[in-house]
Amino acid sequence: MTIARKLRMGMVGGSLDAFIGAVHRMAAWLDGEIELVCGAFSSSADKSKQTGAALRLPPIRTYASYEEMILTEKTLPEDQRMDFVSIVTPNHMHFGPAKLAMENGFHVVLDKPVTFSLAEALELKQVIEKTGALFCLTHTYTGYPMIKEAKQLLATGKIGKIRKVYVEYPQGWLTEFREGSNYKQAAWRTDPKRSGISGCMGDIGTHAFNMVEYVTGLKVEAICADLQITVPGRLLDDDGSVLLRFENGVSGNLFATQVAAGEENNLKIRVYGEKGGIEWQQEDANTLMVKWLHEPAQVYRAGTPYLSSFARMGTRTPPGHPEGYLEAFANIYRNFAFTLQARMNGTDAKPEWLDFPGIEEGIRGMLFVEKVVESNASEQKWTKL
Amino acid sequence: MTIARKLRMGMVGGSLDAFIGAVHRMAAWLDGEIELVCGAFSSSADKSKQTGAALRLPPIRTYASYEEMILTEKTLPEDQRMDFVSIVTPNHMHFGPAKLAMENGFHVVLDKPVTFSLAEALELKQVIEKTGALFCLTHTYTGYPMIKEAKQLLATGKIGKIRKVYVEYPQGWLTEFREGSNYKQAAWRTDPKRSGISGCMGDIGTHAFNMVEYVTGLKVEAICADLQITVPGRLLDDDGSVLLRFENGVSGNLFATQVAAGEENNLKIRVYGEKGGIEWQQEDANTLMVKWLHEPAQVYRAGTPYLSSFARMGTRTPPGHPEGYLEAFANIYRNFAFTLQARMNGTDAKPEWLDFPGIEEGIRGMLFVEKVVESNASEQKWTKL
Amino acid sequence: MTIARKLRMGMVGGSLDAFIGAVHRMAAWLDGEIELVCGAFSSSADKSKQTGAALRLPPIRTYASYEEMILTEKTLPEDQRMDFVSIVTPNHMHFGPAKLAMENGFHVVLDKPVTFSLAEALELKQVIEKTGALFCLTHTYTGYPMIKEAKQLLATGKIGKIRKVYVEYPQGWLTEFREGSNYKQAAWRTDPKRSGISGCMGDIGTHAFNMVEYVTGLKVEAICADLQITVPGRLLDDDGSVLLRFENGVSGNLFATQVAAGEENNLKIRVYGEKGGIEWQQEDANTLMVKWLHEPAQVYRAGTPYLSSFARMGTRTPPGHPEGYLEAFANIYRNFAFTLQARMNGTDAKPEWLDFPGIEEGIRGMLFVEKVVESNASEQKWTKL
Amino acid sequence: MTIARKLRMGMVGGSLDAFIGAVHRMAAWLDGEIELVCGAFSSSADKSKQTGAALRLPPIRTYASYEEMILTEKTLPEDQRMDFVSIVTPNHMHFGPAKLAMENGFHVVLDKPVTFSLAEALELKQVIEKTGALFCLTHTYTGYPMIKEAKQLLATGKIGKIRKVYVEYPQGWLTEFREGSNYKQAAWRTDPKRSGISGCMGDIGTHAFNMVEYVTGLKVEAICADLQITVPGRLLDDDGSVLLRFENGVSGNLFATQVAAGEENNLKIRVYGEKGGIEWQQEDANTLMVKWLHEPAQVYRAGTPYLSSFARMGTRTPPGHPEGYLEAFANIYRNFAFTLQARMNGTDAKPEWLDFPGIEEGIRGMLFVEKVVESNASEQKWTKL
Repeated sequence: MTIARKLRMGMVGGSLDAFIGAVHRMAAWLDGEIELVCGAFSSSADKSKQTGAALRLPPIRTYASYEEMILTEKTLPEDQRMDFVSIVTPNHMHFGPAKLAMENGFHVVLDKPVTFSLAEALELKQVIEKTGALFCLTHTYTGYPMIKEAKQLLATGKIGKIRKVYVEYPQGWLTEFREGSNYKQAAWRTDPKRSGISGCMGDIGTHAFNMVEYVTGLKVEAICADLQITVPGRLLDDDGSVLLRFENGVSGNLFATQVAAGEENNLKIRVYGEKGGIEWQQEDANTLMVKWLHEPAQVYRAGTPYLSSFARMGTRTPPGHPEGYLEAFANIYRNFAFTLQARMNGTDAKPEWLDFPGIEEGIRGMLFVEKVVESNASEQKWTKL
Repeated sequence: MTIARKLRMGMVGGSLDAFIGAVHRMAAWLDGEIELVCGAFSSSADKSKQTGAALRLPPIRTYASYEEMILTEKTLPEDQRMDFVSIVTPNHMHFGPAKLAMENGFHVVLDKPVTFSLAEALELKQVIEKTGALFCLTHTYTGYPMIKEAKQLLATGKIGKIRKVYVEYPQGWLTEFREGSNYKQAAWRTDPKRSGISGCMGDIGTHAFNMVEYVTGLKVEAICADLQITVPGRLLDDDGSVLLRFENGVSGNLFATQVAAGEENNLKIRVYGEKGGIEWQQEDANTLMVKWLHEPAQVYRAGTPYLSSFARMGTRTPPGHPEGYLEAFANIYRNFAFTLQARMNGTDAKPEWLDFPGIEEGIRGMLFVEKVVESNASEQKWTKL
Repeated sequence: MTIARKLRMGMVGGSLDAFIGAVHRMAAWLDGEIELVCGAFSSSADKSKQTGAALRLPPIRTYASYEEMILTEKTLPEDQRMDFVSIVTPNHMHFGPAKLAMENGFHVVLDKPVTFSLAEALELKQVIEKTGALFCLTHTYTGYPMIKEAKQLLATGKIGKIRKVYVEYPQGWLTEFREGSNYKQAAWRTDPKRSGISGCMGDIGTHAFNMVEYVTGLKVEAICADLQITVPGRLLDDDGSVLLRFENGVSGNLFATQVAAGEENNLKIRVYGEKGGIEWQQEDANTLMVKWLHEPAQVYRAGTPYLSSFARMGTRTPPGHPEGYLEAFANIYRNFAFTLQARMNGTDAKPEWLDFPGIEEGIRGMLFVEKVVESNASEQKWTKL
Repeated sequence: MTIARKLRMGMVGGSLDAFIGAVHRMAAWLDGEIELVCGAFSSSADKSKQTGAALRLPPIRTYASYEEMILTEKTLPEDQRMDFVSIVTPNHMHFGPAKLAMENGFHVVLDKPVTFSLAEALELKQVIEKTGALFCLTHTYTGYPMIKEAKQLLATGKIGKIRKVYVEYPQGWLTEFREGSNYKQAAWRTDPKRSGISGCMGDIGTHAFNMVEYVTGLKVEAICADLQITVPGRLLDDDGSVLLRFENGVSGNLFATQVAAGEENNLKIRVYGEKGGIEWQQEDANTLMVKWLHEPAQVYRAGTPYLSSFARMGTRTPPGHPEGYLEAFANIYRNFAFTLQARMNGTDAKPEWLDFPGIEEGIRGMLFVEKVVESNASEQKWTKL
C-alpha cells in the first residue's frame, strides 16, 4: 500500500499570513505520507524566504517564484525533487502554476475554485490529459466521512428515488466592509481581479454546488439565481439564492451568504427520497441524520463499524473522538497520496482512494459560477447549465 | 381585566375525526376564559350530534348546519347565546359561515387560510368592516412566545437593519399518495375543490409567509416561485421554493414541502441584520437563538424575566417547563378573548392582547397563494405581489 | 368510554398567586373532561373569594376553608356536588384535606410529595383502603409520553437486562437567598414547618426518584447520600447527590440541586442495559433517544405511530407539534378522569388509563426523603431503604 | 519562537495495531514542529521493524527494545539523535522507559495514567527533579481550547465562587466481554498485570478527575466511591460513581463507565458558581455553554476573537471549522514542543505554552485511583485523598 518514502510536496502560495496554505500543510502532514520539501510561498521573495525559514526548509529550496521553483526542482536528482505541487494562491493565480507544473512533470493539488474562469478550467483539463499528471482539487467538504457515507447510502437506494435537495452555506465574516482594512482574506475574495466574476458564489457557493452533485450523483440542469451585493462599496456578490433543477425531475434550492451576521461556517445539506432523507451539517460533522418515513430517525456516527468502507477510511479514531475540518482536508490529501503511490508502484488504486475531486468537479464549479452570474442578470426564470 | 363569566363559543366543523377542531377546543379551554356552548360540527347531522354528545353539549345546542346554529343562537336570550363562532372547516367552507355569523352579530375565530380565494378574503374584509365584528385568524405559529420575542427584538433595532430572511417549512406526511385512502386530512388538502388553487403553499406556505412578515414587519414585494407536484396522481402542489424580495431592499427565500420524508413539522425562520441574527425552530419552540457578529450567541428561553411583555404573556409556567403548539394556539385564543372582554367591558385592550392575526394577515396570505401560483406558471423571473 | 357529563372538581389551595394551582386547573381543563365547580383556594377567606371570582365560580361555591368546602359540598344534590378534590397546598397541608375528603366520599388528586412525613403517608394509605376512594398523586414527569415509551421499551427487554441508571435534576432558581423576599414559592419550600425534613430532595429529588422506579420497574434498595445547604441562612438542603443500589444488582446515581445557576428544570434520565440504552431530557420532552451497542442510535418521537399505546395516548397532536409540561400534567388528570368515569360507569378501566401515580409511589417518595436525610447524617456508606 | 529545525521524537510502543501510538504520531506531526526519527514500537522485535518500515524510518533507527533505543541514540551525534521520547505503552511499561530516558538525557512525553502505581509516580517525580528533564503527560482532554477557556473564565470569578462540580465519562465499548477475543485494547485495559489496580477508573476516571481539578483549580479532598464489575468474568472495575468533596466546601460527583451501551466517548463537565455555570461536552468540543442566573446563556465558540489567549492558541482555523480530538492532542504536543524549544534557545516560555500536564497531574491521578479503590472497599462513607 505504501512506498518506501514519504511523498515530497512543493507549495505555491501559503505564506505565513495566509489562511488556506497552513491548512494544506497540516492536512498533508497529519498522516505522515507527505513531507514539505520546497515552496514559492509568496510573490514577494522576502516573504517567501521568511515562510520557508519558519517551516524549517533549507534556504535553497525556498524559491522567489513558482516558475523558479518548478524549473529548478525539475533539475534536481529524482530522489530529491518534489513529486507534486500544492497550489494555494488566490484564484487568478491557479492556472499558471498548475499548467507549468504539469508540463514539467509534476502532479498537482489545487485549491478551489479550480481557476479564474471557465475557459481556463477547460484549458487546464487539456493540460491534464496531455501530460497525464495526477490532479486533485481540494473541495474540502466532500472529504468528511459522513458525507462519503451519505453518498454511499443514497447510491444504495435505501431512501428511495431522490426527490428534493436543499443545500445552504451561511457565513457571517463579510457582514462588515473589511476590504479596506488590512485583512488579506477579505481583500482578495472581494476583488474581481483576483477572485473572478463572483465573490460569495465563487468562494462558497461552489462548495455547496459541489457537495450537492457529489452526494446525490445528480447533475444540475437549470438554475434561477438571485445574487446580492449587500454591503455598500463591495464589488462582488456577497450573498445569493438559487433555485435548482436536476436531471430526473429532481428539484431543490441552494443558498450561500457571507453576510449572515453571527454565522460561522454553517454548510448544511438535506436530501429527501421516496422513503427517507439525510441531513448533515458541517459544524456537527461526525453525525449524519438518516430519517425514515415510517420509522425513527437514525443517528449515524463517524468511526462506527456499520459505515461503508468509504466513510470508515475517513476516520482515524474510535467513535466519539471528534474529527473535523483538518481531518476532512487530510482525507483528500491522503487519498491523493495513496493514489499517487499506487501509480508510482504500478499497482491499482482502491476505489476508496480514488474518491477525491478532480478537474471534472472543477469545471462543473466554474460552469456554475458563470451561469449563476448570467442567471442573476437575466429576466428569464431559468438558465440552463 | 376579566368579565364575570367565561366567553361562550360555538363551533362550525370539528367533528370527532377532524384534527384541527380538537386543537381549537383545547386551545380555547386551556386558560379557562372560554367555554364551548354549541356547535354544528359536521355537514352530516348525525356526525354533528355524535360530536356534540361526546363533548357533553345538550342535544338542543348541537345543530345540523351552521345556518341553523347561527340563526337559532341569535334567538336565544343574551345570557345564554354564544358570543363568537370558531370556524374550523376546510377552506371552501370558511367564507359562508364567517359572513353569516358576523352579519348576525357574532364575532369570529377562523382557521387559516382565511378563505378559498383572494376575492373571498377581500369580500370578508368588507363584512368585518360593515358589521364591526371582532375577527381572529389562527395563524398558530405567531402565537409562540419566542416568535413574539423575535418580533420585538427586531423592532428594537438591536440586530441592526435587516438584510436577509430565510424561512422554511418541511413536512413529510404527504410523501406517499394518501388521498385515495380513507385519510380525511390528506383528502381535502389535496382537493382543488376544497383547498383552492394550491396545496402545500396554501396549507403551510401561508404559515411561513405569515411568519416572515410578522417577525420582520416587512412586506414581501416580489417573488419567484417554483412549485412541484412530486407525487404522481396528486392534483395540487405538494412542494415549492420561492425567492423573496421585501421592501427596503431586503431579500430572502422561502420553501415549504410536504414530501420531505421523515420530517415532521419543522418550521424554521432565520433573520440577519447588520449586527446579528435570530433563529427559531418550531420543534424547539422555547428557545430563540440570538446571534451576534462580535459576541457569543445568546440562548433566549421562554418564561424568563428578561423577555419582552409580549413574550412573557405567552408563557404559563417557569422556564424549563416546555410549552408547545397547544399553548401557542391558546395564546391566540386568549388574546382574542381578552380583547373581546375589553370590548364588552368598554375598556381598552392592552397592546399585548391585540397581538393576534386578523383579516389583513388573511388577505396577505391569499395574495401570496395567488401570486405563487401565477409566478410558478410564468417564464419571467419576478412576479410582483 | 365517557360519561354524559364532565367530572366536577373542587380545589384546595391554588389562590391566584400560587404556581402549581394554576397548573392543575389548566391540566384539568385541557381535555374537556373536567370542570372546576368549587374551591377553598386559600387559608385566607378573602383571598379564596378573590380567586373564586377570578375563576368565575359562583360566590356560594367559594369556601373559606377546606373543611367548609368538603362538608358543604357533601350536602349538595348529587348532580351538583363535586366528584373529587384537587389538593395543591404546601406539603404540611396535604394530609388533612385528603383524609377529610375521602372520609366524606370524595375522590382525591394530590400534589406531590404526598405528605409531610412518611408516617402521614402510611396513614393516608389506610384511609384510601378504608374509604375505597380513587387516589392520584401528580408526579408530573411520568405523564410525559416518551417516559411512558421508555418504560414500555425497557419492559420488553429490547435493550437487555438493565445495568446502570443515571438520573439528575438540576435547577437554579434557589441560587440566591430568596426566602426573605416576598417570594412565596421559595418561602414555603425552604421552611421545615411547611416542607418537612428536606428541601431540594423533597421537592425535586422525589420526582427523580419516582421517575427512576417508574421507568425501570426496579426498586431502590440502598442509598448513600450527601446533601448540602449551599446558600447561607437556608434551613433545608438545596442540593444533594445520592449513590443508588437497586434490586438485581443494578447500580446508579441521582443528583438534584436547586443551586445550579443558569439551569431551569433540567430533569434527565439515562438507563443502560446489555444491548443498548435510553436517554430522555425534560426540556426536550418529545424525543426519546434509544441507543444501541452495534447499530445507530434511534430518535423516537412523540405522536408517531410506532410508539406503544401508552405513549400514543399521551399525545394530542401529530409528530412535530410539540407538547410539554401542561400536557404531561393533563395526561395524569385525563387518566385519572377516565378511570373515575369507568368506575362510575361500572366498566373496566383500560391499562393505559390506570397509568397514573398513587399512594404506593407516594410512600416510596416519603421513604426516600427520610432515608436520604438519614444517610446524609450517617458515617456509614450505605443506608437501606 | 522557533528553533531552526524540527524537534526529533523517538517512540516507545505504538506498533501498527495499537490505537494510541498512531494518535501520538498524528498529534506530533500536525503542526510541523516535530519529526519522528526512531522507535522501539513493540516488545516484539519483528513488529517493531514492520512498524518502523511502514513509518518510513531507516531500519537502523528502528530498535528491538526501549533500552536499545535509548542507549544507542545517546551515542549518536547531537544533530541526529532524538530530543525526546514519547512513551505510549500499557501502564505497566511506563515507568521503566521514562526513567531510563531521562537518566540518559532525553525529555519525555508519557501517555496517561502516569504509571502502574502511585509509588512509581512518586519515584518518577524524583527522577524528573534529579535529571531536570522536561516531562509531559498527555491528558488529552485538557488540550481542548474550550476547556482552556472554561478554566480561564472560572479563574476570573465571572461566574462567582464555585459551588458545584459534575463530571461524567460514559463509554460503551466494554459492554460485552471482549477480553477473550483478539482485541488488544480491551485485553490490556482489563488486565491487572498491565493496567494496575483499576480498570475503568484508571483508564477514564483519571481523565475526568484531571479535568475537574484542571478546570476548577480546586483540589479534591475526600471521596466516596462505588465501583462495579458489571460484566461477568472481568477482573477490574468497568464502572463507578464517586461523590466528591473539594477544598473550600465545594461538592460534586463524578461517574465513569465503560458499559453504557451505545455511548461513545461522552466526557462532560459542568461547574456552577454563585452567578452562573459552564458546561462542556467532548463530543461537541468546539462549544462552551456559559449559563447565567439572570441573563440568557451564551454560546462560546472555538476560534473566536473574544476568547482568552490560552483558548485562542488551541485553534488553527476560523470559527465554524471544527477541530477535535487530534487537535486537542496536538495542542499538548505543541505546547510541550514550544516549551522545549524555548529551553533549548534559552528563552522564556510563554504562560500559554506551559499549559500542559506534568508529573503533578500524574501523581494526583494515581492518588485518585488508589483512593477510589480503597473507598470502594470501605464501609465508611468518606475517604480522604
